[in-house]
Amino acid sequence: MITVLKKGTSQAQIDHLISWLRSRNLDVHISHGENYTVLGLIGNTGNVDMELLGSLDIVESVKRVTEPFKQCNRQFQPEDTVITVGKAKIGGGNFAMIAGPCSVETEEQIIEVAEAVKAAGADFLRGGAFKPRTSPYDFQGLGAEGIRLLLEAKKATGLPIVTEIMNINALDLFADVDVIQVGARNMQNFDLLKELGKTNKPILLKRGLANTLKEFLMSAEYIMSEGNQQVILCERGIRTFDTYARNTLDLTAVPMLHELSHLPVIVDPSHATGKIRLIPPMAMAAVACGADGVMVEVHNDPIHALCDGAQSLKPEQFADLAKRMRIIREAIV
Amino acid sequence: MITVLKKGTSQAQIDHLISWLRSRNLDVHISHGENYTVLGLIGNTGNVDMELLGSLDIVESVKRVTEPFKQCNRQFQPEDTVITVGKAKIGGGNFAMIAGPCSVETEEQIIEVAEAVKAAGADFLRGGAFKPRTSPYDFQGLGAEGIRLLLEAKKATGLPIVTEIMNINALDLFADVDVIQVGARNMQNFDLLKELGKTNKPILLKRGLANTLKEFLMSAEYIMSEGNQQVILCERGIRTFDTYARNTLDLTAVPMLHELSHLPVIVDPSHATGKIRLIPPMAMAAVACGADGVMVEVHNDPIHALCDGAQSLKPEQFADLAKRMRIIREAIV
Amino acid sequence: MITVLKKGTSQAQIDHLISWLRSRNLDVHISHGENYTVLGLIGNTGNVDMELLGSLDIVESVKRVTEPFKQCNRQFQPEDTVITVGKAKIGGGNFAMIAGPCSVETEEQIIEVAEAVKAAGADFLRGGAFKPRTSPYDFQGLGAEGIRLLLEAKKATGLPIVTEIMNINALDLFADVDVIQVGARNMQNFDLLKELGKTNKPILLKRGLANTLKEFLMSAEYIMSEGNQQVILCERGIRTFDTYARNTLDLTAVPMLHELSHLPVIVDPSHATGKIRLIPPMAMAAVACGADGVMVEVHNDPIHALCDGAQSLKPEQFADLAKRMRIIREAIV
Amino acid sequence: MITVLKKGTSQAQIDHLISWLRSRNLDVHISHGENYTVLGLIGNTGNVDMELLGSLDIVESVKRVTEPFKQCNRQFQPEDTVITVGKAKIGGGNFAMIAGPCSVETEEQIIEVAEAVKAAGADFLRGGAFKPRTSPYDFQGLGAEGIRLLLEAKKATGLPIVTEIMNINALDLFADVDVIQVGARNMQNFDLLKELGKTNKPILLKRGLANTLKEFLMSAEYIMSEGNQQVILCERGIRTFDTYARNTLDLTAVPMLHELSHLPVIVDPSHATGKIRLIPPMAMAAVACGADGVMVEVHNDPIHALCDGAQSLKPEQFADLAKRMRIIREAIV
Repeated sequence: MITVLKKGTSQAQIDHLISWLRSRNLDVHISHGENYTVLGLIGNTGNVDMELLGSLDIVESVKRVTEPFKQCNRQFQPEDTVITVGKAKIGGGNFAMIAGPCSVETEEQIIEVAEAVKAAGADFLRGGAFKPRTSPYDFQGLGAEGIRLLLEAKKATGLPIVTEIMNINALDLFADVDVIQVGARNMQNFDLLKELGKTNKPILLKRGLANTLKEFLMSAEYIMSEGNQQVILCERGIRTFDTYARNTLDLTAVPMLHELSHLPVIVDPSHATGKIRLIPPMAMAAVACGADGVMVEVHNDPIHALCDGAQSLKPEQFADLAKRMRIIREAIV
Repeated sequence: MITVLKKGTSQAQIDHLISWLRSRNLDVHISHGENYTVLGLIGNTGNVDMELLGSLDIVESVKRVTEPFKQCNRQFQPEDTVITVGKAKIGGGNFAMIAGPCSVETEEQIIEVAEAVKAAGADFLRGGAFKPRTSPYDFQGLGAEGIRLLLEAKKATGLPIVTEIMNINALDLFADVDVIQVGARNMQNFDLLKELGKTNKPILLKRGLANTLKEFLMSAEYIMSEGNQQVILCERGIRTFDTYARNTLDLTAVPMLHELSHLPVIVDPSHATGKIRLIPPMAMAAVACGADGVMVEVHNDPIHALCDGAQSLKPEQFADLAKRMRIIREAIV
Repeated sequence: MITVLKKGTSQAQIDHLISWLRSRNLDVHISHGENYTVLGLIGNTGNVDMELLGSLDIVESVKRVTEPFKQCNRQFQPEDTVITVGKAKIGGGNFAMIAGPCSVETEEQIIEVAEAVKAAGADFLRGGAFKPRTSPYDFQGLGAEGIRLLLEAKKATGLPIVTEIMNINALDLFADVDVIQVGARNMQNFDLLKELGKTNKPILLKRGLANTLKEFLMSAEYIMSEGNQQVILCERGIRTFDTYARNTLDLTAVPMLHELSHLPVIVDPSHATGKIRLIPPMAMAAVACGADGVMVEVHNDPIHALCDGAQSLKPEQFADLAKRMRIIREAIV
Repeated sequence: MITVLKKGTSQAQIDHLISWLRSRNLDVHISHGENYTVLGLIGNTGNVDMELLGSLDIVESVKRVTEPFKQCNRQFQPEDTVITVGKAKIGGGNFAMIAGPCSVETEEQIIEVAEAVKAAGADFLRGGAFKPRTSPYDFQGLGAEGIRLLLEAKKATGLPIVTEIMNINALDLFADVDVIQVGARNMQNFDLLKELGKTNKPILLKRGLANTLKEFLMSAEYIMSEGNQQVILCERGIRTFDTYARNTLDLTAVPMLHELSHLPVIVDPSHATGKIRLIPPMAMAAVACGADGVMVEVHNDPIHALCDGAQSLKPEQFADLAKRMRIIREAIV
């Protein structure tokens, strides 16, 4: 950690700070510039609160040199993590397509969609049973019944299933779910992350709407620090000043996360854009910049969808998209 | 709800959409302009998913006319809500100061701070027992022991206490806590909000870092829709492109929330700025634009604080600030 | 334009507003809902200031139905605009690559780069002569000499050239420049746009860092309203809370701009990312989501570049990228 | 400047970089940590492009220690700059009120408003003659005639005048203007700033919608580096994700700019909020956090204003606000 002291800091103040830092088991290297004194802190800087240090009157700025994330850090594990669920693999050169409706509605609907996306080449079936909704008055999903219907669709098609958890007390219902999703709004629900870290299931972690990549990785770290190494990172749009699409899909995060971490990175263009016609171009762009997978909403009858239907492709559109994605994938590897 | 249809929409498409809308028990008023057809939807538009409607190919845009929040909406309750805890009141012309350390550390610390802030005129003692931290490797608070120490400080000074809950499974520990805080990261942890809506305690709800005022009010609505009408809204900074302060304190939210809702609105300048020297000016500005209260971190020994100490005033600085805030408060009412 | 009046507005207030609107030559359609009265304004709503209307105490909200941009609006010209410069074409199914160094430095450098990018298939040579720099103490470009060197490179290779104008008083120097670029910081320098609208040269207009797509199109409209219909829109990243890349490349703007406007849309991944290793993936993603062209910085010796060199590819990296972009382009059309 | 090299950088690469840095006349201090090597660069680091350095494959990050702004930097001039225009002073303990209509419309209007704001205690008259408008089809101001009318109002009341310049070619028209305003959209129109730096008039520089405080100060530096030391900084709202107000007024910028620079800082709550009813609370908040002045729009007849009238107070509202601002000002100094 590097600490820059303000011009005019007295020697007594410098000595006082250094002795406090040493009491925290840090080595301190001092270098005097023309206008500033710079302290290099060496050792376990996790013992020192950067913000506390930065708030001191004599401190100009503080900069961490070593990233605070460890287990998901590519520096400490250069080879890609590969998540394997049955025959499907994500990461390490394996590309996966996850498709399905926003909400599970009926057995007929979910099985029909599951069969259609399987035929188009999807590797996983997604579907919402517990739905986080901005309004308490909106449809909140079928809950336990939704999970039951997903498992019927899995039985019918063999596709592994991905569905979202909102409350750790519902964990028992997820016993046969293949991949547990954590939504953007829960990305920093740390107690939920810790409990999921104690399971042995892959966790699909969505990036929060206003979270930096480092915060995103620290949330993955919460899961991994409890023992579960199977985390899939999912970029799904961030919140910016522009409102023509629902959110701003931040695709540069894909190569950047690959640089920072060995975890697989997928993209969800459906929630980010909120408009059916924007999904195919953005899904293809996600593949082109190196995503390890794409998760898209597919519905057999968009106009009747109970929830977020606006974001759903029809199965035939998905099949066409899947074909193009495979060509692009080959062009880049 | 107003729906604008795209130029070139055929009469058959219009008729199809209208019959679908009517099947959802809505009256539809049609008006034809030069380039667009506009549909006015009347009735319980809660039955219609705005985003679904907006995603249809024939739809240019959708605009809600009636706000989706009801119980916190000033239109439906013109008079201010007043939260009363013992002798302290917030809202409806009552101004409250909430002060205390970021984290509870020791009995000696919390009692000393409690006495100091009480002497300076604080109405509530705040202190963190459960701490949401970006990193799993950072200090996470004293937990149950922290709450016990806060209750000791309450016994010693008579100040009601405010502390944060992160996990609904910890609710029993909050039996004697006076005001339960929900942090910014949990503002859309809807299951937590619903459970708090079943309690009879005032809830201090912090605005999320990237949440609009309407989303903020919808989260208050989650609590209120379960029966608990005692919600205090807290502006604590939003995330923007500028990084000189930790977050951007959005003070215009104060008069705007007062216009939209009857709930009391307070401001936390400590977390927003992250720098001690910025707290007094921003606390005074919060009072000047009409906040019903201010929550500031006060610590007896900033350099040794375990967590977020960077944001703490010393008690004597708080006493001076409290005096100035009272003068400003008088100038504006 | 649709104006929603607040609950409780008196009939006298409504009548007063309507008579004022009619005095501005607008037809007013009134519809009364349960909680609100909605006015539909028909006619040339350009006569009415939306913000003025929205600021009135009795007005809840105002919404424009017809877009304020006309000449660049796809509704009024469904077929794509194609920009032709010599043999190069952009838009309407034509894809163009624009490449070259950030700054022109020496005759040797610019000719060497021009030859290399031509060999790799570039259609245009770019190079900065006038450089907008945040600091007055940074290198500001070679100015007129830079343009002279670009023209030498054009003579040597036949590539048309693209370079940035910062001051309308320098227009004479651009007499032989093929495409004039307006930088992000000048996107709303309206006097500059108007003067460029009087020229007969294609204008490459970059999106401002915090400008919405509608503002972007209104700036194109400034140029077009003076008679110059040849505008190329360029997405180059917006400013958001995340700082791991220099800016956030907003690729969803590509399909969205194609929907709103008939003008060609290109992408500059170099300035957006600020990191060489992020340029190839983001350039490929730009192609995959339908961009009509890509503009990348290529330098023969990155370490010695005087300015923004950080963003430059080497010619051999560009050649490899160009090959992959062509494959992706074929997959999507 | 501090440069952190990536883990795994070879000694040869380090030596190569150091020799390049030394060729730029920098001293290099090397310190080896566990995972990283850190280079401290000492000397005139203005010779090195931070972004170039940061883009190198072996470089983890680069951090500037000395701020790039010099003449506006409080480190190099601890005492406040005071701007004096006739009897009015801004900065160094002097508080100024600047008031007037958004646009100058008629001689009668501007003189009536000028007299009203003078009576309420305003120190300057503001009024727009050249108006930057998002749309080319909107009213663009009276231009030269507007300046003539402002000068009439100055003659009638003795109030010094503030008005905006958009194009350096119009400078002659500003010969008798007291303070020249540069609008937010021109904050990085560097050629305009340089020319204004050659005048001897105070420049009121507005912060751009998406500009950091450092960029804001660098733009002041452009003016000062040409010799004109009279710059007034004006916070007027930034662009964020929330849209309930036109922009997000960033009041924390006031104490922060005072810390970084000796230049006076004023606030314009009219443009930031876009709603009359939000102006008084935000103007008072601006005073409470230490602004050296406030600029508000005042109009004698808001409903008839040609432009931005939505943001105007009536004179009697301004008079009441002025009184409250004076009380708050006294409470904080």
